[in-house]
Amino acid sequence: MVWASVEGKSHCMIDLSSLLSPKSLAVIGASPDEGSLRGRIMRVLLCHDFKGKIYPVSRSNKEIMGKKAYASIRDIPGPVDLAVLIIPAEYVLNTLKECSDSNVKAALILSSGFAEDSTEEGDNLQKQLSDFAASTGMIISGPNSEGFANTAAKLCPTFSPTVDGDDIELTPIWNHKRRVAVIAQSGGMGFAFFDRARPKYLPFSHVITTGNEACLESLDILEYLINQDEADVFLMFMEDVKTPSKLIRVAEKALIAGKPIIVTKIGQSDAGTRAAASHTASLAGSYAAYRTIFERYGIIEGADIEEMVDIAAGFVYFGDRLPVGRRVGIFTASGGGGGWMADSCAANQLQVPILDPKARQKIDKYLPTYGTSQNPVDGTAGIVREVGYANISRMIASADNIDTVVTIASTRVPHKLAEEQKLLSELSKKTVKPIMLWSYTIPHSDSARILASSGLPLFSDIRNCTRTIAVMCDYRALRESYISQKNSLGAPTIFSSELLDTIESSPMTITEHRSMQILKLSGIESNQGILAQNIDEALEAAAQICEPVALKIQSPDLPHKSSVGGVILNVKGSKETCDAYTKIRSTIDQTHPNARIEGILVQAMSEPGLEMIVGITNKDGFGPIIMLGFGGITVEENRDVAFGIAPIDTEQCQSLIKSLRGSVLLNDVNYDLSSLKNFIVSLSNFAVSASDYIQEIDLNPILVHPPGQGVSVVDALMIRTDGALKTKA
Amino acid sequence: MVWASVEGKSHCMIDLSSLLSPKSLAVIGASPDEGSLRGRIMRVLLCHDFKGKIYPVSRSNKEIMGKKAYASIRDIPGPVDLAVLIIPAEYVLNTLKECSDSNVKAALILSSGFAEDSTEEGDNLQKQLSDFAASTGMIISGPNSEGFANTAAKLCPTFSPTVDGDDIELTPIWNHKRRVAVIAQSGGMGFAFFDRARPKYLPFSHVITTGNEACLESLDILEYLINQDEADVFLMFMEDVKTPSKLIRVAEKALIAGKPIIVTKIGQSDAGTRAAASHTASLAGSYAAYRTIFERYGIIEGADIEEMVDIAAGFVYFGDRLPVGRRVGIFTASGGGGGWMADSCAANQLQVPILDPKARQKIDKYLPTYGTSQNPVDGTAGIVREVGYANISRMIASADNIDTVVTIASTRVPHKLAEEQKLLSELSKKTVKPIMLWSYTIPHSDSARILASSGLPLFSDIRNCTRTIAVMCDYRALRESYISQKNSLGAPTIFSSELLDTIESSPMTITEHRSMQILKLSGIESNQGILAQNIDEALEAAAQICEPVALKIQSPDLPHKSSVGGVILNVKGSKETCDAYTKIRSTIDQTHPNARIEGILVQAMSEPGLEMIVGITNKDGFGPIIMLGFGGITVEENRDVAFGIAPIDTEQCQSLIKSLRGSVLLNDVNYDLSSLKNFIVSLSNFAVSASDYIQEIDLNPILVHPPGQGVSVVDALMIRTDGALKTKA
Repeated sequence: MVWASVEGKSHCMIDLSSLLSPKSLAVIGASPDEGSLRGRIMRVLLCHDFKGKIYPVSRSNKEIMGKKAYASIRDIPGPVDLAVLIIPAEYVLNTLKECSDSNVKAALILSSGFAEDSTEEGDNLQKQLSDFAASTGMIISGPNSEGFANTAAKLCPTFSPTVDGDDIELTPIWNHKRRVAVIAQSGGMGFAFFDRARPKYLPFSHVITTGNEACLESLDILEYLINQDEADVFLMFMEDVKTPSKLIRVAEKALIAGKPIIVTKIGQSDAGTRAAASHTASLAGSYAAYRTIFERYGIIEGADIEEMVDIAAGFVYFGDRLPVGRRVGIFTASGGGGGWMADSCAANQLQVPILDPKARQKIDKYLPTYGTSQNPVDGTAGIVREVGYANISRMIASADNIDTVVTIASTRVPHKLAEEQKLLSELSKKTVKPIMLWSYTIPHSDSARILASSGLPLFSDIRNCTRTIAVMCDYRALRESYISQKNSLGAPTIFSSELLDTIESSPMTITEHRSMQILKLSGIESNQGILAQNIDEALEAAAQICEPVALKIQSPDLPHKSSVGGVILNVKGSKETCDAYTKIRSTIDQTHPNARIEGILVQAMSEPGLEMIVGITNKDGFGPIIMLGFGGITVEENRDVAFGIAPIDTEQCQSLIKSLRGSVLLNDVNYDLSSLKNFIVSLSNFAVSASDYIQEIDLNPILVHPPGQGVSVVDALMIRTDGALKTKA
Repeated sequence: MVWASVEGKSHCMIDLSSLLSPKSLAVIGASPDEGSLRGRIMRVLLCHDFKGKIYPVSRSNKEIMGKKAYASIRDIPGPVDLAVLIIPAEYVLNTLKECSDSNVKAALILSSGFAEDSTEEGDNLQKQLSDFAASTGMIISGPNSEGFANTAAKLCPTFSPTVDGDDIELTPIWNHKRRVAVIAQSGGMGFAFFDRARPKYLPFSHVITTGNEACLESLDILEYLINQDEADVFLMFMEDVKTPSKLIRVAEKALIAGKPIIVTKIGQSDAGTRAAASHTASLAGSYAAYRTIFERYGIIEGADIEEMVDIAAGFVYFGDRLPVGRRVGIFTASGGGGGWMADSCAANQLQVPILDPKARQKIDKYLPTYGTSQNPVDGTAGIVREVGYANISRMIASADNIDTVVTIASTRVPHKLAEEQKLLSELSKKTVKPIMLWSYTIPHSDSARILASSGLPLFSDIRNCTRTIAVMCDYRALRESYISQKNSLGAPTIFSSELLDTIESSPMTITEHRSMQILKLSGIESNQGILAQNIDEALEAAAQICEPVALKIQSPDLPHKSSVGGVILNVKGSKETCDAYTKIRSTIDQTHPNARIEGILVQAMSEPGLEMIVGITNKDGFGPIIMLGFGGITVEENRDVAFGIAPIDTEQCQSLIKSLRGSVLLNDVNYDLSSLKNFIVSLSNFAVSASDYIQEIDLNPILVHPPGQGVSVVDALMIRTDGALKTKA
């Protein structure tokens, strides 16, 4: 059971200390030529003050950049924790063997020419790497990676130009309680986060790029850093997820630990998927499943590098005092800027209420006649000079009806902030509410430094500022509700032997009448009908059922019954029943003579209702995911569908329904929404209990009737799991 | 007729040359103290190489910063085009009189203490300014303005720190075909656009801030700059619009001239409106009306300063060759970056098709095995070195199925761009398709300069890059369709005298039976019913109408009939009719004895259908705006409404319907959509013809019936225009 996994099992977490915090490392393929990547990595490694040992390995050099070079890993006198390989792909495997013989614990493979090469040879080489890692237990990162940076250790086994130079401060000198780690498959993107965040003085613990992920995956690294408490906020750039089952487990762990993940997952579009596939040599997963998981576990999706860095900054400074509500107090010396900020708050579902009278009284003392303390507090330039940003922010924060303060400033010159540095520093330590600064002019580098060292974030993009507030609120609320709800989830149902028999005796494609029976045995109401094997049985069935009836062919080989002429609706009286039965049989016999026929289902026609589709997919390794949408032509034309991770409770089901565009027309007055919700909740529970047996459920359509009249399942189809998954159960 | 105004009338356009391009100017209130605003404006004026004459006027100084000072405007020897006033508010009016006596043509009032002061005195002082301008014809900008910059003239009558310093290049030295003008009420925001755009070397013509707009309005300046062809792309920051009727006229002029407007309009939220109101001393208009106008005339709404500057850059470089379609070709040396760009394109409804084979063939020659030319073209670092950004961009642009090229680069170091400068310059001159660059690392200042001087925009925010492409496509498509459709719009209907009599004989609030009659006389089908004055007439009416019927009180004093007990539905037979009539009359007589009663309307009950609301509002000075939404509880709960400027044609009506969330359930199979569209189009035409007579129409609800069964108006209410508007007609 995926959803119960975190509690129940102890996962064998991989120890990555030899990779990420080695005491000694060898660079195999090192060169003195700074124009080549092999020389650049040496220069980058040496320009930072790493305290461990660095051994260049080179066949053609005795010495590289002042370091004695060795002809082979075997010649190195002391122990080596990490081998960094930057040699042609065809030599990698043998070199790894030598490393293994020399007790090297981890390898970082920067070489390319593996699966990303789109050749059979590349694929084979990569497969050999995975096999080697599996058989030896060596930690292998890459291939085709750009390496990483461990800022505390000042260790940079990478040729990224963004850390090339001894003038580059890897992380700010002041102490921070919370640090950011970047984990990215793409080297360019991974180090770009670092490049963007440096002028903002954001504290980093690691920048780790993983390349093809032949062995070690981003999620392994994420889990390690969470467990070791080595980072607190994660910026992730995912092209694919090699082992989907890890995602939910690690996402839940991060959420419970209160360590937010800000992610860009490539593959939202066809071309994005194409790009991810061609580059990382694997197919990007179904985006809907990812988004569903992200929403459930509070993983924040970013749309731009700078935006993601800005969101990370919010959590770095205020992760321990996230806003309890959505009410924002704004200070501005520019009336226009205040109005814009208020609108930007509204665009992110934040409120800007009039400040409470107590706070207004404090502020009014300092305001000129043309100022206002209502909110935005418009104090004009005078109040900035006389009272200062820190004091006015504190006064606004004192309002009982405010959860976050935004202070608007022009920071193109830093002297006002410099003057206030001590006060700002005190404010950031004492405040229990986030204080955010937005600069409408381009921040001076010193302005950014002063604020960061005072412990306050500075935003330059107004959208990023207000979105950061919103996601901080969302994250806190979601985390609290997740933790409180988690304990109330019941254990999955134990299936009756009759139910298990029904599933196990079915072919892979479970026909409608069997699917309906399975639903019924699970306690979910369904329009079962009666299976007829001949005309007499069909007539008897029709007589038992209130007319009109529907006749439907039942065959595991004909899942699309209507399109092959296997369905006749609105049948009344004996003659029509005989005719319909005969027509269906003869049509199918002619067109699909080899189809396995289980019989013809005689079923009551449903009363009218709103057509919806409910589905379960349990194929991508994420566990069962429920899909809800409007039926008929609507779903195809509009793609108005919503996804949730099973099981869902009534409240989550309500949100699921609300997230459909068409839900504006779905109300309690016209439809039996409470029955719809109960139905979906029951189905989601069934899907979890059945997750080892059923990989797909397709109820298309179900009808939602007027209030008090319930829902009916008009058609149903299930697909069993294949042998592999079955055996695992 | 607002919608026909541009063609028909010639507007008296104001000549602003004396304000914006004076040959001589006096600074009244000038000071040598650089710590004060009065000294700062002198420093700013003098540090740029303005070729005209600058006369300081000061009572207490003989000389200011090397310039002879005059005690009064009257003492200045030569003619003065522009007086800049920076003196206490109470002296402004007398000083303006002196200026007028001395033949000064324009005044820029930087002084505050007017309407923004929220005092009666401030309001009065501002009213005196407007009156003075109206009576003398003097051009007056401000008060409470931060002044402006005319970059070509190197004229900066402002104290804004963003133009303070002779090291500040007001506009790039290279010649640009298209220039940007900023027009903002807020000084802080106006000059912030300039501050943000300077590191991007965006060419500006003007930065104009307008303050309280007591006389001269932003739209006047916009119209002047369009007419004079002094700027080509406009960045606007609007807090309010003083004269709404100017908006449509100037917006249409800009669209036809192909000069895009990128705007932020404050007041989208309650707090935003509050901020705008308190600051500019006027109430922000209804935001829905603004958005409707923006959409109709291709005005682009921005959500952030940098975003707006980036969009402006797209139009500056490619305004003469906007993309004809939404197909984007991407080059990247970072696979991750390419995938992200493709996803970001998709988020903006752009397509990233596989390149046509001809273009792929050209590119494949240069690609390594691990590259791909499909799209994104992933060439890795090698192709950048060997082929270069310019050549690869040109090859992608050569694909027939591509409309815009995005080239992804790391520009934190500029040498590759420097090496290619000549090629990039040629590319920008020759390309007929936009070439956009996105840098995932922070652009080096030289990278930005090299690209700008080559004529190519550089984006740092991926969202801004893809949104710019999308809005360039949208703008081109909208402009072409606007120009081609414009000529096909018919003239408004001439009303029959019967129709005019019906309107003119009505009280201000036009009751349902009269409203229904007006609709019918205008050729719009309505459920008229029969007005009964007594029980006998009611019985006779009911007999004529197919039962059941509805009885509804008709009184201009009781627009909300149901809530006062004035409506009884589903009445059948004589007894029920008598009872219903008596009950309504007695209820109303008791509770509203003074209400003017026109009678009781006896009406056929409508067949069931989907409840919608259609309304017209014609109050804010924009001309009639149509509103469409779902009826019943849905509209109140979900605010699922859409707005359009009347008249709208069938195609626009289709988009209006599609923009409703609930439209996913509105399809031709279930509802008579074509009747709905015809109804809305007819109503919008009526609203235009009636715009001098009717200020509000509220049809709530109308019912949309199944296909072929039309729509019915279930209730109707109209409000006449007040006397003022009526007389104008």
